[in-house]
Amino acid sequence: MSAAQAMLLAIAEGQKGAGFVSPNPLVGCTILDRDFNLLSTGYHAKYGEAHAEANALAAIKNPADLDGAHVFVTLEPCAHEGKRPSCAKALAKLPVASVTYGLEDPFSLVSGQGAEILRQAGKQVALYSGLNAELEELAEIFLMNQRHRRPFVALKVAASQDGKIALADGTSKWITGEESRAHVHRLRGFYDAVLCGSGTFQKDNPKLNSRDAAFAGRTSRAVVLDPTGAAAVGLKDSALWSVRRPEDIFLVTAPGVKVPQGVQHVESEVADGNFVLDHVLEKLFKLEVKSLFVEGGAQTYAGFLRAGLADRLYLFTAPRIIGRGLSWTEGLVLEDLSATVNLIQGRTMNFGADTFFTARLA
Amino acid sequence: MSAAQAMLLAIAEGQKGAGFVSPNPLVGCTILDRDFNLLSTGYHAKYGEAHAEANALAAIKNPADLDGAHVFVTLEPCAHEGKRPSCAKALAKLPVASVTYGLEDPFSLVSGQGAEILRQAGKQVALYSGLNAELEELAEIFLMNQRHRRPFVALKVAASQDGKIALADGTSKWITGEESRAHVHRLRGFYDAVLCGSGTFQKDNPKLNSRDAAFAGRTSRAVVLDPTGAAAVGLKDSALWSVRRPEDIFLVTAPGVKVPQGVQHVESEVADGNFVLDHVLEKLFKLEVKSLFVEGGAQTYAGFLRAGLADRLYLFTAPRIIGRGLSWTEGLVLEDLSATVNLIQGRTMNFGADTFFTARLA
Repeated sequence: MSAAQAMLLAIAEGQKGAGFVSPNPLVGCTILDRDFNLLSTGYHAKYGEAHAEANALAAIKNPADLDGAHVFVTLEPCAHEGKRPSCAKALAKLPVASVTYGLEDPFSLVSGQGAEILRQAGKQVALYSGLNAELEELAEIFLMNQRHRRPFVALKVAASQDGKIALADGTSKWITGEESRAHVHRLRGFYDAVLCGSGTFQKDNPKLNSRDAAFAGRTSRAVVLDPTGAAAVGLKDSALWSVRRPEDIFLVTAPGVKVPQGVQHVESEVADGNFVLDHVLEKLFKLEVKSLFVEGGAQTYAGFLRAGLADRLYLFTAPRIIGRGLSWTEGLVLEDLSATVNLIQGRTMNFGADTFFTARLA
Repeated sequence: MSAAQAMLLAIAEGQKGAGFVSPNPLVGCTILDRDFNLLSTGYHAKYGEAHAEANALAAIKNPADLDGAHVFVTLEPCAHEGKRPSCAKALAKLPVASVTYGLEDPFSLVSGQGAEILRQAGKQVALYSGLNAELEELAEIFLMNQRHRRPFVALKVAASQDGKIALADGTSKWITGEESRAHVHRLRGFYDAVLCGSGTFQKDNPKLNSRDAAFAGRTSRAVVLDPTGAAAVGLKDSALWSVRRPEDIFLVTAPGVKVPQGVQHVESEVADGNFVLDHVLEKLFKLEVKSLFVEGGAQTYAGFLRAGLADRLYLFTAPRIIGRGLSWTEGLVLEDLSATVNLIQGRTMNFGADTFFTARLA
């Protein structure tokens, strides 16, 4: 197995922890023997439990296999003793020959130190050069959290092939198909909280929880941007309320708006009818919301896009043409083509008859 | 090789003739020996030249190989002697064991007769059951021509991920990338004529020809929907004029509008500022335009969509978000979601960083 294959396998492993490791990063690990044959893989499966390296090591039956082995891990092994023992120190004590990691840890307590511990123990240590987009994507939530101290924000849009989320009269039910909706439930589970605006809350009465079996029983947090308290009034009669505890509901309102008891109340200044979203994100971040899955509507999408606070787009496109109607970017007004928002590292898949496109926002 | 593989190979062969066989259908043929090993393939490469079956037969070096052979052809072998000898009669004389065809010929002079000739000659004859969407797609222009006596109409759209073809102020240059534009040149070559509205003609001054080397030197016909004669006035100074002969330009105007000498003048009634497009198509069909590649703008797309006269969509999507602007379906006003236009048999590909989606309109 080549180094690239080992690293790709580690990335695929790491992805398996999605939805369970916050606020930790997704990390995967591949261990090859001295002749570069696959020995084991592992990933960080749950916050507070073993790291990827420890899981990959635990999967090796015969300790003698580790003699001269090669470890590939998507993120620099941790140097410090936190909730778990230091992975760098654990690897340093073993007879492995080399450790190759995909990204330096952006967390200042660890950055470079894990590599240094391993080097001092006589291991060959290398920062992998390649697969950078894939490695960054795996850890994108954690990297955003560490680099910018704010939640990672994804926009999920379900539109027609002509970019509409509703007819002019607002009708929008079932634009995309069953397979797409199943994937939406999976994606919701990957994020700390699902957000919508008060307009969507009132019009669609959404649950915003994940009905994917993989996330059954898991806390499902919802955020409603509710400047005037319109959503707060109807909250106790809503589907949103019916599927979660009050403390898992975050109502973001202008200062002084009354909200039902027990919900998390985030008060933030409103200017020209809109929140200053970086303030809102700052407050949510302090409340342990490290990633947000934004489900509309058009004004909410536009707010995040305008503020440059949307990090990833998940666009589900149904095989139909709606014509004149509500475009999902209707609220975003740009001055010229050079100001358009660029999408990078895009990927396309099919879910049933729908097209799915995801990309990072540059 | 299975029958399905043989038929898929025949379909791929047939596609090679695209742009050169009008008004004939694209047809491909695969011949397997008595043990179902591949003997040869062939396709109809040019109008007036040999049919697919004849080309596949000609590619067989040793005539003895045909003893007990199996012929797979995407369309029923022709019964009548037209520009070329009857393929059914030619096959009937050969020692082939079976002939499997993908679609019955919709042309009344031939339908069922080719099969009958072969059956009477003792061949096993079968209408293939399967791959129907692929087989219909290969022959879609011809089938539309035969079934509805009108040109097959494709809409080509280059938009942003939010379905916009221009900013609100009309700016639209270079929405999609170089690879997409190269594919557009290929697609233009597949169609008898390229069409745009007078607004696009005046704003973009397009050439509307194919700059794909495969179509170098080939006649490049252009159609402009020009109800008031606005395009006619500037025609001789246009890029459209500079790259083709006057007789390859079709100006569609209201009755009595003056057009430059030498161009093909199609006069058609205008109601509420719009042409009755089925009349326009009827006239173009009589002028040997069997397929139309429509390149905008939004009002022109809407006209074809509204009239139910758009048959295929080619949608190139650039990895950017434009926000509020001109949606490519802005001119299409539908009453409710049940009236939306459904897209079937969609396919997605990538051209560079762009997404390409094509589908039939239901």
